[in-house]
Amino acid sequence: MHFLALNLLNSGVQVSMVCAAIGLAFAFLLIAVVIRSPSGNQRMLEIAAAVQEGARAYLNRQVKTISVIAVVIFILLWVFKDHPTAIGFVVGAFCSLAAGFIGMRVAVLANVRTAQAAGVSKLKALRMGFNGGSVTGLLVVGLALLSVSIFYTIAAKLIGSDAAIRSLVGLALGGSLISVFARLGGGIYTKAADVGADLVGKIESGLEEDDPRNPAVIADNVGDNVGDCAGMAADVFETYAVSLVGAILAGLLTLAGNPAAIVYPFVLGGISVLGAICGILFVNVARGKPAGVLMGAVIINVLISAILFWPATHSLFPVGVTIDGVLRPAAHLYFASLVGLIMTPVIVALTNYYTSSHFRPVQKIAHASETGHATNIIAGLAAGEHATALPVLFIGAAILITYHFAGLYGIAIAVMAMLSMAGVIISLDSFGPITDNAGGVAVMAHLPKEIRTVTDELDAVGNTMKAVTKGYAIASAGLAALVLFGSYVEELRGHITGRGEAFTLVFSLSDPKVIIGLFIGGLLPFVFTAFSMDAVGKAAGAVVREVRRQLQAKPGILTGQDRPEYGTCVDIVTKAALREMIVPALLPLVAVVLVAVIKPLGPVVLGGLLVGTIVTGLFIAIAMTSGGAAWDNAKKFIEEGNLGGKGSFAHAAAVTGDTVGDPYKDTAGPAINPMIKVVNILAILIIPIFF
Amino acid sequence: MHFLALNLLNSGVQVSMVCAAIGLAFAFLLIAVVIRSPSGNQRMLEIAAAVQEGARAYLNRQVKTISVIAVVIFILLWVFKDHPTAIGFVVGAFCSLAAGFIGMRVAVLANVRTAQAAGVSKLKALRMGFNGGSVTGLLVVGLALLSVSIFYTIAAKLIGSDAAIRSLVGLALGGSLISVFARLGGGIYTKAADVGADLVGKIESGLEEDDPRNPAVIADNVGDNVGDCAGMAADVFETYAVSLVGAILAGLLTLAGNPAAIVYPFVLGGISVLGAICGILFVNVARGKPAGVLMGAVIINVLISAILFWPATHSLFPVGVTIDGVLRPAAHLYFASLVGLIMTPVIVALTNYYTSSHFRPVQKIAHASETGHATNIIAGLAAGEHATALPVLFIGAAILITYHFAGLYGIAIAVMAMLSMAGVIISLDSFGPITDNAGGVAVMAHLPKEIRTVTDELDAVGNTMKAVTKGYAIASAGLAALVLFGSYVEELRGHITGRGEAFTLVFSLSDPKVIIGLFIGGLLPFVFTAFSMDAVGKAAGAVVREVRRQLQAKPGILTGQDRPEYGTCVDIVTKAALREMIVPALLPLVAVVLVAVIKPLGPVVLGGLLVGTIVTGLFIAIAMTSGGAAWDNAKKFIEEGNLGGKGSFAHAAAVTGDTVGDPYKDTAGPAINPMIKVVNILAILIIPIFF
Repeated sequence: MHFLALNLLNSGVQVSMVCAAIGLAFAFLLIAVVIRSPSGNQRMLEIAAAVQEGARAYLNRQVKTISVIAVVIFILLWVFKDHPTAIGFVVGAFCSLAAGFIGMRVAVLANVRTAQAAGVSKLKALRMGFNGGSVTGLLVVGLALLSVSIFYTIAAKLIGSDAAIRSLVGLALGGSLISVFARLGGGIYTKAADVGADLVGKIESGLEEDDPRNPAVIADNVGDNVGDCAGMAADVFETYAVSLVGAILAGLLTLAGNPAAIVYPFVLGGISVLGAICGILFVNVARGKPAGVLMGAVIINVLISAILFWPATHSLFPVGVTIDGVLRPAAHLYFASLVGLIMTPVIVALTNYYTSSHFRPVQKIAHASETGHATNIIAGLAAGEHATALPVLFIGAAILITYHFAGLYGIAIAVMAMLSMAGVIISLDSFGPITDNAGGVAVMAHLPKEIRTVTDELDAVGNTMKAVTKGYAIASAGLAALVLFGSYVEELRGHITGRGEAFTLVFSLSDPKVIIGLFIGGLLPFVFTAFSMDAVGKAAGAVVREVRRQLQAKPGILTGQDRPEYGTCVDIVTKAALREMIVPALLPLVAVVLVAVIKPLGPVVLGGLLVGTIVTGLFIAIAMTSGGAAWDNAKKFIEEGNLGGKGSFAHAAAVTGDTVGDPYKDTAGPAINPMIKVVNILAILIIPIFF
Repeated sequence: MHFLALNLLNSGVQVSMVCAAIGLAFAFLLIAVVIRSPSGNQRMLEIAAAVQEGARAYLNRQVKTISVIAVVIFILLWVFKDHPTAIGFVVGAFCSLAAGFIGMRVAVLANVRTAQAAGVSKLKALRMGFNGGSVTGLLVVGLALLSVSIFYTIAAKLIGSDAAIRSLVGLALGGSLISVFARLGGGIYTKAADVGADLVGKIESGLEEDDPRNPAVIADNVGDNVGDCAGMAADVFETYAVSLVGAILAGLLTLAGNPAAIVYPFVLGGISVLGAICGILFVNVARGKPAGVLMGAVIINVLISAILFWPATHSLFPVGVTIDGVLRPAAHLYFASLVGLIMTPVIVALTNYYTSSHFRPVQKIAHASETGHATNIIAGLAAGEHATALPVLFIGAAILITYHFAGLYGIAIAVMAMLSMAGVIISLDSFGPITDNAGGVAVMAHLPKEIRTVTDELDAVGNTMKAVTKGYAIASAGLAALVLFGSYVEELRGHITGRGEAFTLVFSLSDPKVIIGLFIGGLLPFVFTAFSMDAVGKAAGAVVREVRRQLQAKPGILTGQDRPEYGTCVDIVTKAALREMIVPALLPLVAVVLVAVIKPLGPVVLGGLLVGTIVTGLFIAIAMTSGGAAWDNAKKFIEEGNLGGKGSFAHAAAVTGDTVGDPYKDTAGPAINPMIKVVNILAILIIPIFF
C-alpha cells in the first residue's frame, strides 16, 4: 500500500478516535452532572446500595463462569488460528464485559437521583433519567469505536492492514460471545425474578409492584440492573463493534485495494458521536411531552449525521468508487448511508405503532383480556407475529436499495450508518430501567405518592423506548449478519482460490445442502429461545416456591411485622441464571462447528445455516420483543383505568400476558440478536481451520 | 412416445386405478358395517341430528363463499392460462370439497354408534371409531388417486401426456386452495366454539365438557365435525393429490422421456391402499391397549408396502434409471421410497414423544402449571419450539439421503411413499374427532358414566393420534413443497430456454433478491397464523359474550330449568368463521402474484419466497401443532388426578394453556400445511403468464 493510502487510512481512523474521545469526555461530564445532583435520603441510598451489591455480586460470578469458556476459546484460537485473532478475542470479550459493568454502575447512580428529581418536577426527572442513560450510550459507543480503532492501528503496524482486519474478526467474536452470555444470563436473572415476584406477589397476594413485603423485591430490582442495564450495554457494544468490523471486512473483501473503503465506516461512526451529543443537549434544554422530547433527540442526530456524511463521503471518495467493476459516484455510497440513517426512525416508528398503548394492536390485546387469560395470550401471540410484517418488508427494501447503489458494501455501510445512531438510541433504551428502578426506590423508601406518579409515567415512556430500541437492535443485527454472511462467502472464495482451486460454490436454493443448511440454521433460534424460556420458567418457579414458603412460614411478612429474607431469593436466582445460560449460549457455537466438521455437510450447508439463522431469527426476535412489549403496555393500558382498571377480571388476564411477555421481550427475544451474529462470525473464523 | 412406453404408462396408471377402486369398495363395505351397528336411543339420534344439521348448514354456506373465489380463479386460469388447467382446477376443487363432505357425513354416522358401542366394551368402541375413521381415510385416498389418474388418462388422450401433466398442476391448485379455506374456516369455527364454550362454561361457570346447559355446546360439537372431520379430509385430499402431482411433475421435468418415472408414483400409491386395508383389518381382529393396536396398523402398512415396492420398482425400471446423467440401479429408487416409508413411523414416534403425557415434555408443562397460568404458557411455548428439533433434523437427513440416491426425483418419490400411508394415518386421525363427539353424545344423552369413562380414554388416545398425524402431515407437506420448488425452477428453466434465452438463474444466497424472497416468504406463515389466531380470538370473544348474555338473562339455564338457545351460538360462529377466513386465505395468493408482478422483484425473489415460506412454515406448523397437543395432554394429565387433579390451581392454569393451544393445533398450525403448497403451486402456474 503506497504512502498516500496509508496516510488516508491513518488520518481517517484518527478522526474517529478523536470523535470517540469527545464522546467519552462528554460522558464523563454527564457523570459529573449526575453525581452532583441531590441523591436522596438515607433510606433511598440504603436501598440503592442493597440492589447494587446484589448486582455486583451477580456480575462477578457471571464473569467467573464466562471466563472459563472464554479461556478455552482463547486457547483454541491461539493454537488453531493465529495469535492476533486470539488477542482480538480477548480485547472484544473484555470490552464487552466492561461495557456491562459501566452500564450497571451508571444506572445505579442515576436511578436514585431520578427518584429524587421526580420530587421536584417531571422534566427534571426526565432529564436525570435520560442523562444517566446517555452516559451508557456514549461510553458504549465510544468504547467500541476506540477499541476497534486502537486495536486496528496497532495491529496494522505490526502485521499489516489486511491481517489486522482479519484479526478484528476475533475481536468481534469476543464481543458477541460475551454478549450472548450477558444477554442470556442477565435476561434469565431479571425475568425469573420479575415473573417470580409477580406471580406470588401481585397475583396471589395482591401486593403492588415493588412492595417491600414481597421477599423477591430486591432480586427483581437487581434483575433490572444486570439484565436491562449490564446485559443491554454488552449487547450494544457487541452490535456496534461487529457492525463496524463487518463493514471494514466487507470493504476489504469487495473493494480490495481501496483504503477509503476501510476508513469510511470509522468516519461515519465518529461523525454520529457528535450528532448524539447534540441530541443529548437537546433533551436538556427542550420542553414538552417526554416521548416527543426523546424522539426529538433521535431526529436531531439523524439530521446532523445526514448533513455531515455528505462532505465526509466526498472527501474520502473524491473520484467515486469502483464496485463490482463499475465506477460509481461517491453519492451512491452516501445514499446507502442515508438509507441506514432513515431506517432508524422508520423502525422506531413501526415498533412504536405495534407496542404503544395509543394504537390498535395493544388495545386489541387489552380488549381480548376481557374474555380471559387465554384470549389475552392468543391476541398477544398474534400481535407479535403481525409486528414482523412491516419491519421485515422495510428491511427487504433497504437491502434492495443499498445493494443497488453499492453491492454488499452498500448494505454494510447502511448497517454502519444505522448503528452509528446507537449513542442516542441507547440513551433512550437505558432511560427505561433507570426510571423503572427509580420507581422501585420511591416505593420502597416510602416517598410521597406524587413521586411514584411521575416515575410511573416516565416508566411507561421508558417501556416503549425499550421496545423500539429492541426493534432497532434486531433490524440492524439482521442486516449486519447478512453482511457477515457475504463476508463468509468472500472469505471462503479467497481461501479456496488461495490454494489454487476454483471456487464453484454458488449456495443455490436448488442445492439440497443449502436447504438442509437453511433448516438447521432456521432451527437454531427456535431451540435457542425454547431453552431460554425454559430457563426463565424453571428459575421463576424456584422463586415462586421460595416466596410461598416465606409467606407461609412467617405470615407476619404480609402485615409488615416480619421482615422477608431478600437474600435467599437473590441467591436462588443468581445460581439458576448462571446454570441455565450455559446450554443455550453454547448451542449455536456447537452447531456451527458440528456442521463444519461432519463430512457430508461442510461449507455449503454452513452457508445455508447462516442464512437460515438470520431468517427465522429475525422473525422470532421481532415477534418476541414486540409481542412482549405489547402485552406489557396492554396491562398498563388497563391499569390506567380502562376496561375495568386494576383488580378487574381483564386486569388479571393482562397480568398473565405481561408475565408471559417478560421472557419473550427481555430474555429470549433480545438474546437472538447477538446469537445470529456469533454464528456468522464463528463461521468466518473457522474457514481456514476446517475447509 | 413409442407404443411400448404408452403401454407402460397406461397399464401402470390402470394398476393404481384398480387399487383405488378396491380401496373405495372396502370403504363402502366399512360403511355398511358401521350403518348396521346399533345406533343408540332416540335422544342420541336427536343430538346427532342437531349437530349434523349445524355442520351441513355451515358447510353449505362455506361452499357458497369459496365458490365466488373459485369462480374468479377459474376464469383467470381459463383466460390467461389454458383450458385444461382451468378444468383441472375445477376438478381438484370439487374433489377436495367432496372429501370434506364425505368426512363429515361418515363421522356423524360413526360417532353416535361409537357412543353406543362404548356401552358394550372398550374394544368394540375402539373398532367402531377406527372403522368410521378408516372410511374417511380410504375414501379420501381413493378419491385422490382416482381423480388424478382419470383426469390424467383423459387429458393425455386429448392433449398428450406432457400437457396433461402440466394441467394436473391446476388440479393440485384447486385442491390446495379449497383446503386452505376448509382448514381455516373449519379451524376457526371449531376453535372459536371450543374456546368460547370452555372460557365461560368451564372456567367461569364450572360446567363439565359437553354439559347441555352450556349454550355453546352444540356449536362446539358442530365445530368438531366441520373442522376436525371436513377440514382435515379436504386437507389430506389436497396433500395426497399435490404430492402425487408433484412427483409426476418431477418425473417429467427431471427424467424427461422415461414414462416409468411418471407411472411410478401412481403405482406406489396404489400398493399402499392394499397395505392400508390390511392395517384396518388388523385393528378389527387385534386385542390389546388402544394405542398399541392402532400403531400396529401403521407398522403393518409400512411392512406390506416395503415388501411390494421392491418388485414394483424393479418391474418398472428393469435396466435402472438415468438421473443427472448417471445410470443408477432401480434399487436406488426403492431406497428413496423406503426412506419415505420409514419417515412415517419416525415422525409419528417423535411427535408422540413431544405430545404424549407419558413423556417429559408434557409433564414439564403440567408441573409448570402449579405456579400459574403464565408459567404454563411459557412452558408450552418452549415445548412447541423444542418439538421442531428432531423432526426437522430427520427431514434434513431424509433430503440428504434421497437426493443422494435419485436427485430431486428421489425426494419426490420419498414424499409419495410417505403420503401413500395416508389411508391408515387418516384412519387414526379421524378416530380422534369421532371419539370426541361420541363422548359429547354420551354426556348430552345422559348415558351412564361408565360409557363416558370409555370414550374419555379413547379420546385421549385420539388426541395423541391427531397430534402425531399432524406431525406427519406437516413433515410430508414440507418435503412436497420442496419438490414443488424444484419443479418451479425446472419449469422456469424450460420456459426461459423455450423462448431461446439462456437460463442463468442460480437462486444463490449471495443474491440479495434471494434473501429478500426468503424474508417475504418467511413472513407469510407468521402473518398467516397471526390472522388465523386473531380470527379465533375474535370469534371466540363473540361466543363468550353471547353465552354470558344468555346465562345472565336466564339464570335458570345453569340450574337446568331453562333451555339455552343453542342456535344463536351456532349462528354467531358460522358468520364469524366465514368472514375471518377470507383475508388469511387470500394473503399467500396475493403475495405470490405481487412478487411476480412488481418490477424489481420477479422470478428470483419469487424463488426465494417459496423456500422462505417452507422454512418458517415448517417450524411454525410443527411448533404450533405439537405445542398445542402438549398443552392439551398436560391438562388431561392433571385431570387424571396428578398434581392436584381437576379443580386445583394447577388445573385452572392447564385449562388456560389448553385453550391457547386450541387455535395453535387446530386452526393456525395445520392450515400452514396447505398454505405452503398453494404458494408453490401457484408460482409454477404463473410462470408463463408473468415471466
